[in-house]
Amino acid sequence: MQSSNQYRIERDSLGEIKVPKTAYYGAQTQRAIDNFQISGKRLPKSFIKAQGIIKASAAVTNMELEMLSKTTGEAIIKAAEEVIQGKWDDQFVVDIYQAGAGTSQNMNINEVIAHRASEILDGTLESHRVHPNDHVNLTQSTNDTFHAAIHIAALELMNQQLLPSIKDLHKALEKISIELMPIRKSGRTHLHDAVPMRLGQEFSAYAETIKTMYEHIQATADPLYEIGLGGNAIGTRMNLPPAYIPKIIKEVSNRTNLPFREPPNMFQFMQNTNAPIRTMLALKELSIHLIKITSDLRLLASGPRTGLAEISLPSVQPGSTIMPGKVNPAILEMTHMVCCQVIGYEAAIATAGIAGQLEINVMMPFIAHAFLESIELLSNTISTLVTKCISGIQGNEEICNKYMHESLALVTALSPIMGYDRAAEIGKQADEKNITIKQILQEKNLLTREIEKALNPEGMV
Amino acid sequence: MQSSNQYRIERDSLGEIKVPKTAYYGAQTQRAIDNFQISGKRLPKSFIKAQGIIKASAAVTNMELEMLSKTTGEAIIKAAEEVIQGKWDDQFVVDIYQAGAGTSQNMNINEVIAHRASEILDGTLESHRVHPNDHVNLTQSTNDTFHAAIHIAALELMNQQLLPSIKDLHKALEKISIELMPIRKSGRTHLHDAVPMRLGQEFSAYAETIKTMYEHIQATADPLYEIGLGGNAIGTRMNLPPAYIPKIIKEVSNRTNLPFREPPNMFQFMQNTNAPIRTMLALKELSIHLIKITSDLRLLASGPRTGLAEISLPSVQPGSTIMPGKVNPAILEMTHMVCCQVIGYEAAIATAGIAGQLEINVMMPFIAHAFLESIELLSNTISTLVTKCISGIQGNEEICNKYMHESLALVTALSPIMGYDRAAEIGKQADEKNITIKQILQEKNLLTREIEKALNPEGMV
Amino acid sequence: MQSSNQYRIERDSLGEIKVPKTAYYGAQTQRAIDNFQISGKRLPKSFIKAQGIIKASAAVTNMELEMLSKTTGEAIIKAAEEVIQGKWDDQFVVDIYQAGAGTSQNMNINEVIAHRASEILDGTLESHRVHPNDHVNLTQSTNDTFHAAIHIAALELMNQQLLPSIKDLHKALEKISIELMPIRKSGRTHLHDAVPMRLGQEFSAYAETIKTMYEHIQATADPLYEIGLGGNAIGTRMNLPPAYIPKIIKEVSNRTNLPFREPPNMFQFMQNTNAPIRTMLALKELSIHLIKITSDLRLLASGPRTGLAEISLPSVQPGSTIMPGKVNPAILEMTHMVCCQVIGYEAAIATAGIAGQLEINVMMPFIAHAFLESIELLSNTISTLVTKCISGIQGNEEICNKYMHESLALVTALSPIMGYDRAAEIGKQADEKNITIKQILQEKNLLTREIEKALNPEGMV
Amino acid sequence: MQSSNQYRIERDSLGEIKVPKTAYYGAQTQRAIDNFQISGKRLPKSFIKAQGIIKASAAVTNMELEMLSKTTGEAIIKAAEEVIQGKWDDQFVVDIYQAGAGTSQNMNINEVIAHRASEILDGTLESHRVHPNDHVNLTQSTNDTFHAAIHIAALELMNQQLLPSIKDLHKALEKISIELMPIRKSGRTHLHDAVPMRLGQEFSAYAETIKTMYEHIQATADPLYEIGLGGNAIGTRMNLPPAYIPKIIKEVSNRTNLPFREPPNMFQFMQNTNAPIRTMLALKELSIHLIKITSDLRLLASGPRTGLAEISLPSVQPGSTIMPGKVNPAILEMTHMVCCQVIGYEAAIATAGIAGQLEINVMMPFIAHAFLESIELLSNTISTLVTKCISGIQGNEEICNKYMHESLALVTALSPIMGYDRAAEIGKQADEKNITIKQILQEKNLLTREIEKALNPEGMV
Repeated sequence: MQSSNQYRIERDSLGEIKVPKTAYYGAQTQRAIDNFQISGKRLPKSFIKAQGIIKASAAVTNMELEMLSKTTGEAIIKAAEEVIQGKWDDQFVVDIYQAGAGTSQNMNINEVIAHRASEILDGTLESHRVHPNDHVNLTQSTNDTFHAAIHIAALELMNQQLLPSIKDLHKALEKISIELMPIRKSGRTHLHDAVPMRLGQEFSAYAETIKTMYEHIQATADPLYEIGLGGNAIGTRMNLPPAYIPKIIKEVSNRTNLPFREPPNMFQFMQNTNAPIRTMLALKELSIHLIKITSDLRLLASGPRTGLAEISLPSVQPGSTIMPGKVNPAILEMTHMVCCQVIGYEAAIATAGIAGQLEINVMMPFIAHAFLESIELLSNTISTLVTKCISGIQGNEEICNKYMHESLALVTALSPIMGYDRAAEIGKQADEKNITIKQILQEKNLLTREIEKALNPEGMV
Repeated sequence: MQSSNQYRIERDSLGEIKVPKTAYYGAQTQRAIDNFQISGKRLPKSFIKAQGIIKASAAVTNMELEMLSKTTGEAIIKAAEEVIQGKWDDQFVVDIYQAGAGTSQNMNINEVIAHRASEILDGTLESHRVHPNDHVNLTQSTNDTFHAAIHIAALELMNQQLLPSIKDLHKALEKISIELMPIRKSGRTHLHDAVPMRLGQEFSAYAETIKTMYEHIQATADPLYEIGLGGNAIGTRMNLPPAYIPKIIKEVSNRTNLPFREPPNMFQFMQNTNAPIRTMLALKELSIHLIKITSDLRLLASGPRTGLAEISLPSVQPGSTIMPGKVNPAILEMTHMVCCQVIGYEAAIATAGIAGQLEINVMMPFIAHAFLESIELLSNTISTLVTKCISGIQGNEEICNKYMHESLALVTALSPIMGYDRAAEIGKQADEKNITIKQILQEKNLLTREIEKALNPEGMV
Repeated sequence: MQSSNQYRIERDSLGEIKVPKTAYYGAQTQRAIDNFQISGKRLPKSFIKAQGIIKASAAVTNMELEMLSKTTGEAIIKAAEEVIQGKWDDQFVVDIYQAGAGTSQNMNINEVIAHRASEILDGTLESHRVHPNDHVNLTQSTNDTFHAAIHIAALELMNQQLLPSIKDLHKALEKISIELMPIRKSGRTHLHDAVPMRLGQEFSAYAETIKTMYEHIQATADPLYEIGLGGNAIGTRMNLPPAYIPKIIKEVSNRTNLPFREPPNMFQFMQNTNAPIRTMLALKELSIHLIKITSDLRLLASGPRTGLAEISLPSVQPGSTIMPGKVNPAILEMTHMVCCQVIGYEAAIATAGIAGQLEINVMMPFIAHAFLESIELLSNTISTLVTKCISGIQGNEEICNKYMHESLALVTALSPIMGYDRAAEIGKQADEKNITIKQILQEKNLLTREIEKALNPEGMV
Repeated sequence: MQSSNQYRIERDSLGEIKVPKTAYYGAQTQRAIDNFQISGKRLPKSFIKAQGIIKASAAVTNMELEMLSKTTGEAIIKAAEEVIQGKWDDQFVVDIYQAGAGTSQNMNINEVIAHRASEILDGTLESHRVHPNDHVNLTQSTNDTFHAAIHIAALELMNQQLLPSIKDLHKALEKISIELMPIRKSGRTHLHDAVPMRLGQEFSAYAETIKTMYEHIQATADPLYEIGLGGNAIGTRMNLPPAYIPKIIKEVSNRTNLPFREPPNMFQFMQNTNAPIRTMLALKELSIHLIKITSDLRLLASGPRTGLAEISLPSVQPGSTIMPGKVNPAILEMTHMVCCQVIGYEAAIATAGIAGQLEINVMMPFIAHAFLESIELLSNTISTLVTKCISGIQGNEEICNKYMHESLALVTALSPIMGYDRAAEIGKQADEKNITIKQILQEKNLLTREIEKALNPEGMV
């Protein structure tokens, strides 16, 4: 049984409830703890930080507009800045799967800041001088602040982690593409012999794909800069002086060094979580391409004896617990798994996205989780992919050249000379006799100088 | 301008409307034509047939229960049987994307049968003696009949097409597995050298997967035998005598030779389209496996010179318009595309499945389309896959054996003798020197008789 | 048995095959007909037209570069232009689900044009003067032309149909938003009473969402203007003079009046179908929003007696076959179904998108089908949605006002005056007593003039 | 810089590496820590426990078959049992996103057990007497043990948590269905007035849906009882005596009290992760139904003043930070979010499922994570849903009855008397005049006794 030394009594509109004596959170957070024993997981630090930035910015704005006393406002700002610095991370205790729209999450920070601000002012967190709703949440609702916090957190992660990692991947692929450009090989379409190409050309395509993704993600993320702070519950800006919105957005921009702006239509911002949905679709596209590229690399690196073996990957760890000496493409496989997860998160967010009803989409806490985790997973994965795999790729010129010379698709070069139909016949015979195109031409006494020149794969690429 | 020779005037509760003079459909169908110019596609014949079976069965039942006169009833039955035989296929003109729940689709058949039955009785389809709602739709609603028609059509397609094709695929894989069992090869995990196995063992796994799918789909489809005819609008069986439901279900069972039964809870049947959703998930699983298996086959058949080339597929058509002589795994690629489509249809049906609200899921017309088309596509694809590809697969023993003997994973056999760590060292050295395990052991004077015996891949599988 | 009057013998690299005597297609198309009896569906006219444009443009370019004789070239151009005009639509007979990469589809047009051009020159389609590969397909491969045809067809559909329909939807929503702006109502969050707003504000949010989608789709579709004609099989531009690519792209641009351009990296273009994948993701986003908006409208229009009934929709057809007088939101429901399909197509295309391997993604025929059909479905649906539903929406002011005055969320206005906790208590008591906020305040003698003014919902929005 | 007091040197086939001095894991785990800084998340306890069970069972079996000495075997068993009890949870440190197939995860437990067993025998974990591969992993591979561990962990979670929670939900819905059976209301189809029904009937449908899911999940999970222990790397059971497989499966069955069995085809087991894929599809189906049911409940509970308000949910916490007194359907919303996640995990697992290649699907670590977390999330959510929401639902009879009497769909009862067309006309007039069906009949002097009786909704259900 809990003794009264261990807890204190807090109140909300549903009545009294026991809260751990030393907790900075209060009644509503405690109810959320009791109600939501689901995953044991919390929203990430990036999100808590963004909430803290909003609470500090609202207090600054409310003080400027004389809606909040200097004393209370400054205490709130100090407490919020402590939250931003991560000092109260252990006080954020609400499960990811919680009340729709994140009411519990918003109350968690409102309560932590209220108690901490009270403590700053009175030396005890139990003084209740600062009220979580009337002071900390003043001029705000869950609906505008939670949604805005997703945008702020996402942009910080994207600008500081994801976009730089994608740029690094592009550079690494471009560099390796140049290194591998001297190596000639056979192309493959339908996994079948195709005409010659250069190994570096294959990688230049990967580099280009990643480059376009960098640009696309950056462009797609632009609506994240719209934060509807001041829309409060449904977009009507209830009880708010006109100066409020530009002031708070400017304050958030200053604190994040990011150019946030007011949404063109506040009701639209409140109704939906469109910017996360859209950006998530771009992350799905990135994942599709990463799966394609890493699957190609696994194919090209397959072997060492029973696969294509055109490239070698750096060894990062032993590959089998039963087959000694085996080294697997572990980093590429890990990347593929992360991409499966991101594709799954997009499916989840889309399912959540269609669940919006009228003035709000209450699925926001889950969307926050899935979206922010996707950004973090991709950032870490891509950085690892660059440093532990891509940068160390080497081409196996001997094997590549062998494939090129043996490829039946060299016959393509004969089409302009003898026509498609006769060229096809030549190819078929080489296949049946299991010899090269050059050899079958020699056998048939068809290897003129013109044809020999045309057939030379070194001349083709 | 339409002359009065070309159309007649029909009426419904929204007023008068012009209908082509020779059309057997009426006012509501005409409105649906005007409202839904979306895809130009119709629900499939299997569905129209199932609707016809229901209309005939309802008329039989209503006559037995003396709710419908013999004259009218018999005319309706005759007209419905003509629909079942496909005589009026060109009269079913409502777009797949139509009124929620399929009201337009149900009125289409009600109107066609009413006009045709009137014609049977009066010699003119304009007599209006038989009423689409009061007679043809008597005791029914869109909600129970449309939903039941999906079940009936799906089971006919599954029993006559899909399940037999899956059985054929299982048999073909099993047969090829036995044929290929003598061929030894190197296994591959992570696309890297693994221990030896038999080519037939790989195929036996494919056969087993397909076998379990046959059983799973058959079991999963069982709820399709529940048809809630008699539930009418929402499950309350309004105005229906108790004998109605067993009678109509028996009549449908007789006409289809399938053992349909009453759902355990009529409200549950009306609220949802659970059986199609569930069966569709099983078709998704089948598609996942087909993609895996056909992707494997494309890998194993890759080449002829630049790939693994362990198996050969039958040539069904030239493979390139520019590279003469190329032959691609076209049937396998086609199968993969169909599976993408089925996976997409499942995603679509799931999205439609969560859109049910209270007493009905109005997404039924789309669900009917996507579900029935998935069954048909898979049936045709699998049959083609069996006859044009699987049955003609041949193993390339020479190549398989070469991989087996060169595989570095043979070193696994040394683990029990010299321990994992030393075996790994041996494997590493063979890799670096680009020689076989046996060769490196010879070089190091370690090839004892025991080791030579252990290393012999023919002894391993 | 087929008599020799009915067929002729054609040849390809696999041997002889019978083709219907009057068919303009040839051996490879016939093989594809035999191989792919899957869906009975063909790629759409927009795609065939785009193929025709490419064939004509290639012939023009090849003539200019003196790779093709004037006689042959002009016959090809004439035949291709007939294809563009739709004259030979019935000769395009290959199933959607066909050889990977669309080899069969490319041969279908190569053969039709070759036979027709031969006929133009020789008066008989059997002269074989024009060769499908050596002349019609000269300088091309399936891989570059099929992929480019998707881009061309998609942009024509988007510019002529989809984008205009989205613009119309935006305008219609904006217009209705202005019309409904005078009507005050209660907002709803979590489907629960929220603070007052205007009906027009809700619609302004829908309008804004659609406006951003217009801009986003337009921006996202930009990479579709990159067409890799001249990359031929894998991007190496084999046997092509440098002038070829700019010339053919200019010719295609002239014939379509669209500003196509060369891709920045030809290997990347050949490896993937990234632009369709990306655009499809934008269409998924559009579908998510359409589901949200139309679901809201169905909620707001629910009733007439048992729902919210805040708006009325135009009646387009009777809504029930058993419940007389019922009128359902049929157009909105149809829209929802189409969006399910588009979401499904995106899932399918993503699954196809990750199946690319090395120099090509062979899933192109399916991607073409799913992508182009999505554009067409959305275009037709949105146009119908505008004309048959959105434009006729009317607000029910009386009902809206009633909800506004009864909403318990009016208590929000009391927070700044009496604090959140006391306001919550007032709200709770009004709920329990089932009276309005104003009434409970009167009962408790708390209705000061200040509070009465604050509580007046007309003053809030 | 790390001092030598803090770490020790361990070795694997890639060379030496520093490991924290007190760590029970070794070189390969350390490499995995260094390689995979991705999510910071670990596989769940249920999985570690299952791995422990397998390691203990293998040691027992290897001792019985005299492949492992009694001393070493007993030390391994003791160490493995400590793992099972959770004593070494903090030693399992490999990220979820790790080496394909889970090689790192398998080495983590091999190393922890090897070091702990060495410590048991020698008093120091640095003695290396017990070898992670040669002793702990003896007769096993990652491929068979990791896959089997997923099955074991999943079945324990399903039998102990998920299935009981689903059964509780079924019972709670059935109970509430009986309680609410006396309340009559209007049905709604298309969110529009439909014929009368009982509130309890609606809930009986929910109960039935959940009941069928219980049975379906139980049946679908059956293949999880197949565990391919002894298949080792690819299914060839290399170096294994025939008695091995039955013995180890019996040992695992004893330790779990679950009837595990050998798969019918070992190669099929190794190639795929079919049982998790299949079961996950059933969890998706469950999620679809939970979204449908909880969305219905949110609709029925909407209000209190601006919604349908037919039922009341228990208040579990305040619903708004800005609108005092608001109480939201928080538990239902949380459930919806969890279902979005599970749907997303299924999409992710399907994407991983198609990535299998030849003898293995290397996506297993991710599949383990997503599958096991889905089971846990659903278990916790459903339990919470039952206790915090479903059990406390109350019906609002007055409101329900009002809707029933006002519903225009009552006119359906007139169809059999006056025909569909006239009934529709009556309904239309009542709608236009905004009066009830009864009132319009009175006005028109049509309210005969027969009609009055037919119209009485109490008589309809």
